[in-house]
Amino acid sequence: MVRPPRGHEVLVTTDFSLEQVHFRLDWHPPESAGHRCLARGLSDLAAMGARPLAAFLSLALPPECMDGWAERFLDGLLALAQDYGVPLAGGDTAQSPFFDESGKRQTAMVLADIVLLGSAPRGRALLRSGARAGDVIYVTGALGGAAAELLALGRAPKAFRRLTKAASGHPHLYPMPRVAMGTRLQAGKIASAAIDVSDGLSTDLAHLCQESGLSAEIYEVAVPIHSLARKAEADGWVPSALHLALHGGEDYELLFTAPAGKRVPPKIAGVPVCPIGTMKPRAKGRLAVELSGLDGRRMPLHAGGWEHFRGKGSSRGRI
Amino acid sequence: MVRPPRGHEVLVTTDFSLEQVHFRLDWHPPESAGHRCLARGLSDLAAMGARPLAAFLSLALPPECMDGWAERFLDGLLALAQDYGVPLAGGDTAQSPFFDESGKRQTAMVLADIVLLGSAPRGRALLRSGARAGDVIYVTGALGGAAAELLALGRAPKAFRRLTKAASGHPHLYPMPRVAMGTRLQAGKIASAAIDVSDGLSTDLAHLCQESGLSAEIYEVAVPIHSLARKAEADGWVPSALHLALHGGEDYELLFTAPAGKRVPPKIAGVPVCPIGTMKPRAKGRLAVELSGLDGRRMPLHAGGWEHFRGKGSSRGRI
Repeated sequence: MVRPPRGHEVLVTTDFSLEQVHFRLDWHPPESAGHRCLARGLSDLAAMGARPLAAFLSLALPPECMDGWAERFLDGLLALAQDYGVPLAGGDTAQSPFFDESGKRQTAMVLADIVLLGSAPRGRALLRSGARAGDVIYVTGALGGAAAELLALGRAPKAFRRLTKAASGHPHLYPMPRVAMGTRLQAGKIASAAIDVSDGLSTDLAHLCQESGLSAEIYEVAVPIHSLARKAEADGWVPSALHLALHGGEDYELLFTAPAGKRVPPKIAGVPVCPIGTMKPRAKGRLAVELSGLDGRRMPLHAGGWEHFRGKGSSRGRI
Repeated sequence: MVRPPRGHEVLVTTDFSLEQVHFRLDWHPPESAGHRCLARGLSDLAAMGARPLAAFLSLALPPECMDGWAERFLDGLLALAQDYGVPLAGGDTAQSPFFDESGKRQTAMVLADIVLLGSAPRGRALLRSGARAGDVIYVTGALGGAAAELLALGRAPKAFRRLTKAASGHPHLYPMPRVAMGTRLQAGKIASAAIDVSDGLSTDLAHLCQESGLSAEIYEVAVPIHSLARKAEADGWVPSALHLALHGGEDYELLFTAPAGKRVPPKIAGVPVCPIGTMKPRAKGRLAVELSGLDGRRMPLHAGGWEHFRGKGSSRGRI
């Protein structure tokens, strides 16, 4: 039972975390899978400027569940819940048996769905649709780190096996959703629109443009690139750290807009905030998002975000 | 965004509906799968005496989704939502690709998770834990019909293919959750405890006993048996209609208790209500639920409820 503060309304988010889509049993410590499951929902609330009230978990497990896996998954989820002061208020468990067309048992999968309830002052939650032409576009923290860590994880999963507790510097395994940032952006009437960077900057900015009926121009030089993405480039894993920052997913940073005259502190709730571009009137017949390079040329930025990873050990869709 | 009435609190339920566990593509019309997905959540609210406020659907579909299946699933879900006046307020969609251990693609599955938000007067929702020794046990409607229709469905799925709209007389394909009953039991201060019959009377009554710290005795002759269960016995499909009524699942009727002196109408919100037994002080060393036969003998009633169906075309776990 959930009681929002007086004058607030209840916001609800739901997010699947599916084995082989969002995590792999042979790559992710169970605690990380649980942490990331809750983080997805918390990040959705953060993007609305909402305070978390309660979480509800639906979990389906194979009949012969891996020894202790579910307990460790819950440990990771509950540790993050405690850090963010959000009670796990209930849920549902089920078996997840799978059969092929002939009725033969196939590998069963772990399926989780997290529901977050949050609250925001009535009618004043942050929306994706509130941006105006001329607004400045900001992003929190740095981008591309989660994609870079996932690359490292796929190359040597064993090296990450002992990371069973949340720690900073692990943007893929233990992302820290920007809840305090979101409530500050909401309460301070700073942001005109907001979204979280779950599918990648190029994809999520395109969503924000679509919802606001606008286009956007971002400046290559302004995009904050995570040190792990720079390292992936330096080590020759990817041709370009910028590419990871533009298209890598699951960073769980916030992308928001604010009127050009609005004072936006360079740091909010301890996290850096960078201006990266400007909202523009909708450009007909062109992609909504353009990237201005150092040479002053504008290039259309295709939404090329996260498609999670695919089978056969390949780490992800497009990098 | 959800606003409960003044003085009410928000209640949340989550329920998975998983292909091969809760429905089969080769048995259930897609509209039935969608209807049943929402019905599970509505029945949970009914058991709390809560009014539905909003529903949220998470749906994961195979990459190459069956032609029109998802649309028909939604049609069935939305038709029931309209009947019960509950808006589908949002949700999440995802792909559900599945791989075996070698990374080879296997059959992908349809996964749904339904979240229902409801409201009840603050601190006065019906609980499973409120029963007292001496309370009378009641059940709504009749039992065993859903299990009987599932048997028929498994024997001749084609005969049910055109049942694409909710209709009475189809307790498995189109159950009608007892929401009006639940709110009447709550508002009229009739019920001391309640649960919905989703896993079978024997299992759900055992849950209620456990939560209330009591035992229960029910009378064989008093258990209302659905006409489809009687027909399944008459046709020789099962040895005993009573067995279906005691252990068959997914009837989505309400099981509740009320003080012995309380006047309980024989019909509430148009649905018959039958007394079937009595709550008793906890009996140590014995099963919590006993069944009194026509001969006056008491037998322990094992929780033998619903295990949904299993592979290889067998229709269900135990009948």
